[in-house]
Amino acid sequence: MSDGAKIAICPGTYDPVTFGHIDVIHRVAQIFDRVIVAVVHDPLHKAGTLFEADERVSFLEQALADDANVSIETFGELLVDFARRHDAHTIVKGLRAISDFEYEMEMNQLNRMQRPDIDTLYLMASPQYSFLSSSGVKELAMFDGKIDDLVPERVARRLKEELAR
Amino acid sequence: MSDGAKIAICPGTYDPVTFGHIDVIHRVAQIFDRVIVAVVHDPLHKAGTLFEADERVSFLEQALADDANVSIETFGELLVDFARRHDAHTIVKGLRAISDFEYEMEMNQLNRMQRPDIDTLYLMASPQYSFLSSSGVKELAMFDGKIDDLVPERVARRLKEELAR
Amino acid sequence: MSDGAKIAICPGTYDPVTFGHIDVIHRVAQIFDRVIVAVVHDPLHKAGTLFEADERVSFLEQALADDANVSIETFGELLVDFARRHDAHTIVKGLRAISDFEYEMEMNQLNRMQRPDIDTLYLMASPQYSFLSSSGVKELAMFDGKIDDLVPERVARRLKEELAR
Amino acid sequence: MSDGAKIAICPGTYDPVTFGHIDVIHRVAQIFDRVIVAVVHDPLHKAGTLFEADERVSFLEQALADDANVSIETFGELLVDFARRHDAHTIVKGLRAISDFEYEMEMNQLNRMQRPDIDTLYLMASPQYSFLSSSGVKELAMFDGKIDDLVPERVARRLKEELAR
Amino acid sequence: MSDGAKIAICPGTYDPVTFGHIDVIHRVAQIFDRVIVAVVHDPLHKAGTLFEADERVSFLEQALADDANVSIETFGELLVDFARRHDAHTIVKGLRAISDFEYEMEMNQLNRMQRPDIDTLYLMASPQYSFLSSSGVKELAMFDGKIDDLVPERVARRLKEELAR
Amino acid sequence: MSDGAKIAICPGTYDPVTFGHIDVIHRVAQIFDRVIVAVVHDPLHKAGTLFEADERVSFLEQALADDANVSIETFGELLVDFARRHDAHTIVKGLRAISDFEYEMEMNQLNRMQRPDIDTLYLMASPQYSFLSSSGVKELAMFDGKIDDLVPERVARRLKEELAR
Repeated sequence: MSDGAKIAICPGTYDPVTFGHIDVIHRVAQIFDRVIVAVVHDPLHKAGTLFEADERVSFLEQALADDANVSIETFGELLVDFARRHDAHTIVKGLRAISDFEYEMEMNQLNRMQRPDIDTLYLMASPQYSFLSSSGVKELAMFDGKIDDLVPERVARRLKEELAR
Repeated sequence: MSDGAKIAICPGTYDPVTFGHIDVIHRVAQIFDRVIVAVVHDPLHKAGTLFEADERVSFLEQALADDANVSIETFGELLVDFARRHDAHTIVKGLRAISDFEYEMEMNQLNRMQRPDIDTLYLMASPQYSFLSSSGVKELAMFDGKIDDLVPERVARRLKEELAR
Repeated sequence: MSDGAKIAICPGTYDPVTFGHIDVIHRVAQIFDRVIVAVVHDPLHKAGTLFEADERVSFLEQALADDANVSIETFGELLVDFARRHDAHTIVKGLRAISDFEYEMEMNQLNRMQRPDIDTLYLMASPQYSFLSSSGVKELAMFDGKIDDLVPERVARRLKEELAR
Repeated sequence: MSDGAKIAICPGTYDPVTFGHIDVIHRVAQIFDRVIVAVVHDPLHKAGTLFEADERVSFLEQALADDANVSIETFGELLVDFARRHDAHTIVKGLRAISDFEYEMEMNQLNRMQRPDIDTLYLMASPQYSFLSSSGVKELAMFDGKIDDLVPERVARRLKEELAR
Repeated sequence: MSDGAKIAICPGTYDPVTFGHIDVIHRVAQIFDRVIVAVVHDPLHKAGTLFEADERVSFLEQALADDANVSIETFGELLVDFARRHDAHTIVKGLRAISDFEYEMEMNQLNRMQRPDIDTLYLMASPQYSFLSSSGVKELAMFDGKIDDLVPERVARRLKEELAR
Repeated sequence: MSDGAKIAICPGTYDPVTFGHIDVIHRVAQIFDRVIVAVVHDPLHKAGTLFEADERVSFLEQALADDANVSIETFGELLVDFARRHDAHTIVKGLRAISDFEYEMEMNQLNRMQRPDIDTLYLMASPQYSFLSSSGVKELAMFDGKIDDLVPERVARRLKEELAR
């Protein structure tokens, strides 16, 4: 049994944050005492992000300004090392699909091997956001699609500025 | 943000408990202040359980005797109603496979529709238990297979008494 | 190229009809000239239905009374034989999950082997109904759960009469 | 209920067309009055196509020359916008595998959110083509593999010209 | 490195054998020196088989009469015990679908825990049989469907005798 | 029935070899008379390998030095052509996850179409290695994670030299 404040880490690239991410973070903030949204500074697997880390953090700060127990940070190390530096023993992630599930199962075991005292919990995406991803939103923005129901207003405006052909 | 003790419900039929169940419950007990293992009294979908609810509870009590923050109860109502009666807002379940994932996704949404203030979190099964299920153990016991690494000693003995052909 | 009215068959047990079924049928009725909802009279794989075929049909008739191009029938033969008797060359089904997908892929090939001139099309379930099944609703009804957002009013009343413990 | 000619859109990159694509298009042409094969002009997710849009269209035109109700066009906008410009309310795609299924489920919901009056139907790939993809054919061609049963003769010749090491 | 004749066990209920089973057994007989088809005498999970073990064996013997290195036996013990009694260290099974895959992964680990010296290999079903199962054939037979391309002639005749409504 | 020594091909990029690969190769070497580990010289789908083919082969040679019936070779042709040049009729691969399964099913059919006399068998990954991949190990190495339980000592040292930031 652990004691003290329960802290959860919600990691991601958030390039940019969507209403699906925000829904997961809100639900985690109901369950844990504190939530640290951990923004990958410089993702390995992608040919670069659309938005710089600073702007991705700024989108999250604005979207989560009313959530007193949520804070935002960037990280550029192993997630379990980041968690330990913040005295957190729990990572929480949203699951949308089977393909998420398999990748997460692999990461979960690799992380537990690194630090057995840090575990990962998963939340199922809400149905209305189960189809929503940052990359899908960017593709819509590129072709001037409607994205107002998918991302916060400021994010929508910046996406159109960066991507509209 | 919630306050007070964090309570997690770990529901299941536990017919009988395996080392895979115990691993999940131990991991949940590290994260939450209290864990209530909720044993389905009389499952709908099965042609009857091998062990009566009393004995299934007794197996769990013995296996979890050293876990000060874990208690065992039976239930015969909607899981979200059971959770509410115990002031718990969080259900935690283990995920072993894709087929678990889809069933859980469906149950998760039906439960949230019943009580939006109760959410469900998932833990990935540890690799060494990812292939382990109560029904697999029963099938092995029926043919006098080795089950000592799969269930507690007393459970193994009772399985052989009930099932050995 | 075919000519004449486009007819689609929407088969199922409908024990009972849910808002998820109705959503699929409405969407099919937008695409085809006529829709025949084909209710399995006496399903092979189930230990009997909760409602008799007559009442299952009656639920559908009431729910679809305003859809001029939709009719309801029962069948007790191979689905492709039923389709041929009604001059229909297209079966349309909803897909909710991966497990649906694999079963449907198998049935699809067996059906095409029987009658190569009859093909099957699939619609993805709407997100708000992707977790909804007749068996989930029956389970909720058994424990007095809220089902008013899942099935038509008369179906909800009859479920409670038949199932409330 | 809709009226007038039933039009289906069959979108894809078709780089190059395979006998699997042609099988799906033929089956769609049996069900709908008219089929428009919509060739993505300039795909976002790929590091460039092997064949220019003009040649990809030309392969399709030759392969489908005998299908009176099928036409070929390129597009460089949202698929639902393309559909609307052509008075089509139905998109039809082939499904080969689970991974297709999840991606399609996501695209399906994003598209319906853009234009609720346009829906997407799916056909299961015929078993003999369920393993066949444009990228698999290109890989075979690169190593001088046999591809005559996988693509039309002219496509096979052009693949060898472009790819044989 | 093992020595001596390579023996493979092909287990199943074979109620009844289909052309899909026969295709897998033929392919295994190309790779191994000897193949023992192991017919489950009395399956645990089913409400009884349609055909008695004797007749299921007889169907297999007739279908495989020309395969000099294939023999048929029944078993009523753990599969790994059966394998050991026959000096076989390899079990070979066909995989048709994802749902097969997960069940097999579980069985595979339970079996290896019982006897680490016995391993299981898998063959992918040929595309033309990937949709074919004994239960699908029985369902077709019940409604007088065409099954001549799915099972040997004598099996087809016996299915009609037993099942035609 | 085949005769002569049973040869199995174990293909892969092995960039670098992990204990998961070695576990599969050892298990194959128990079943077949000879195993040829076939290292892809220059993979098509990747933006270049981390280690040159020579060093990848050298890692394998050291890790498998005690296995008398295992040899290592590189190849730059169709796998079935490589198999035929070595008089091998069997390819054996490890399966870790559903996503592996679908890709392998596709490759399996394309290969059998090229050379019907060459077949592919699959082994399920051992649970303790089911989460282990070369790319996961490289990602850990980049952030100075613990990889000593995942790859041979020399591989671990070289990974740190190449990748540590």
